[in-house]
Amino acid sequence: MAAALALAERGRGLTAPNPNVGCVIVSDGRVVGRGWTQAGGRPHAEAMALGEAGEAAREATAYVTLEPCAHEGGRGPACAPALAEAGLARVVIGIGDPDPRTDGEGIAHLERAGVAVTRNVLAAQARRSMAGFLTRRALGRPHVTLKLAASLDGRIALASGESRWITGPEARAHAHLERARHEAILVGRGTLAADSPSLDVRLPGLEARSPRRVVLTSAGAPDGWMAIAAPDDVAALESVDHLLVEGGAKTAAGFLAADLVDRLLLYRAPILIGEGIAALGDIGLASLDAAHGRWRLADARALGSNRLDVYERARASSGKVDTTFPPG
Amino acid sequence: MAAALALAERGRGLTAPNPNVGCVIVSDGRVVGRGWTQAGGRPHAEAMALGEAGEAAREATAYVTLEPCAHEGGRGPACAPALAEAGLARVVIGIGDPDPRTDGEGIAHLERAGVAVTRNVLAAQARRSMAGFLTRRALGRPHVTLKLAASLDGRIALASGESRWITGPEARAHAHLERARHEAILVGRGTLAADSPSLDVRLPGLEARSPRRVVLTSAGAPDGWMAIAAPDDVAALESVDHLLVEGGAKTAAGFLAADLVDRLLLYRAPILIGEGIAALGDIGLASLDAAHGRWRLADARALGSNRLDVYERARASSGKVDTTFPPG
Repeated sequence: MAAALALAERGRGLTAPNPNVGCVIVSDGRVVGRGWTQAGGRPHAEAMALGEAGEAAREATAYVTLEPCAHEGGRGPACAPALAEAGLARVVIGIGDPDPRTDGEGIAHLERAGVAVTRNVLAAQARRSMAGFLTRRALGRPHVTLKLAASLDGRIALASGESRWITGPEARAHAHLERARHEAILVGRGTLAADSPSLDVRLPGLEARSPRRVVLTSAGAPDGWMAIAAPDDVAALESVDHLLVEGGAKTAAGFLAADLVDRLLLYRAPILIGEGIAALGDIGLASLDAAHGRWRLADARALGSNRLDVYERARASSGKVDTTFPPG
Repeated sequence: MAAALALAERGRGLTAPNPNVGCVIVSDGRVVGRGWTQAGGRPHAEAMALGEAGEAAREATAYVTLEPCAHEGGRGPACAPALAEAGLARVVIGIGDPDPRTDGEGIAHLERAGVAVTRNVLAAQARRSMAGFLTRRALGRPHVTLKLAASLDGRIALASGESRWITGPEARAHAHLERARHEAILVGRGTLAADSPSLDVRLPGLEARSPRRVVLTSAGAPDGWMAIAAPDDVAALESVDHLLVEGGAKTAAGFLAADLVDRLLLYRAPILIGEGIAALGDIGLASLDAAHGRWRLADARALGSNRLDVYERARASSGKVDTTFPPG
């Protein structure tokens, strides 16, 4: 399943509104098929893996990060019947598909066909892997990541505006990799005016993965950009399930004030700036009590002399799609 | 030597102007004596360990974090002759003693007496362990630690001034433990006026380890406090080799602007505050170039849901006492 989750990452930022799924087929201890949702959503991961496995799929085990679909999408056959027809002995699944056209029906189809099904395997990782798809299903909007690149004392620029560079080359390369994992990147009006950022992915081999560009403004969008007037309007961004918010401080604060941030990328350079420009403007915090309990550390790593901490928004479970199968 | 370094920590904050040394005596694979510099500087670590070992010191090996002294202090016999007379076969030493009355003479005495000497063992850790003593020798002032307790975005309070609590109980307990490792704690005039902080060590069993209190002010000191008028005046604080600066933002910035901070304790709570009070005021930074290369991560750990990062000032070697023996 870990291998299937790694394959699923290849589709992140390319498959909306489809989930980025990964699939590995194993026969007699050997990997005979690998697949991941292709750009635009087709073929599905299972179809690609079945194609690679061919006859070797018979009596094999498939590991799929999401419940195989039970519904034909008009652009290809449904995956649960395809897995059954290929003669798989067993299908191991990460999480259930909340799409009402599948939602348990994929599993039911497999079991009716005599395929053994195992559920909830690495479910937490699978949920994280498909955060864009699940957030769109649960909250009707993209999964939003906010990037902050700051000094140890939380400054993103000197008082003079000088900000190149606070972070080091490894951290900047990582930030470009994160861009490639999102369908769109958003900046504020001020950042657009000051920096005219290209927001492209400047990493060898990934140049074509540069996401669409969005600006937060009530004025119109310049050529090559989309515009939204308020943070809440991200819901209307079509085929965007992963949105990366890159700043500036006022835009970041606007998304936080609207509680629209699901994930926080905090790049920190080992420098102190003192008086300067703060990472965040007013987020509407009334008391310290209200600030606690919202963020949970999900990852921490060194990037050269810089550090990256990844925090995830800890939301009440009511805001989640239930993707866990009841024990059974 | 690691055990000797652990013992040495027991004296940190209690022995100035003497170094906090640790000593372990091992005979036939068994620890027969342990010692560390006692409060006020006497007995020395070696004398205490020799007292515990008694006759078992004969033909044994002593591990000492600092070169044993060659000079009688008037308050006790010199340690190098005492080790030789006790019949030690071997003495393993962390770093050399820069005190001109010893400075190699301790080693020379041991070798003349036929004791085998090994040098430079865990020297970097030994230097860190005796940072207070070495900084006083090299720079004529205490080793200064600056504590910052902030949100992820570098705020130490809401705009309203509310700051209780940003960090969690584990982080606050750790900060109290750090207090016990310093001879004195300093705050700014504003913090004294606003909070009347007691700056004591509120940890069971360590209440008696509460350091002296210093305020940065040109006005007089209140009862129970010392006062200095400028950061540079820390040099004049007698019997203070470890000074902890606890804030506020202006005081912290003053010490950084004067390049008087050797170590940075950065406690960070997993919260965002947005508009609020910044951790640091103006530190006199002219450009980003000048900010880089000054701080090196020395430790990082979780304290409950909070994180502690410890950074050390990376100084040009010219500012250091040379405590490394030439290879020989």
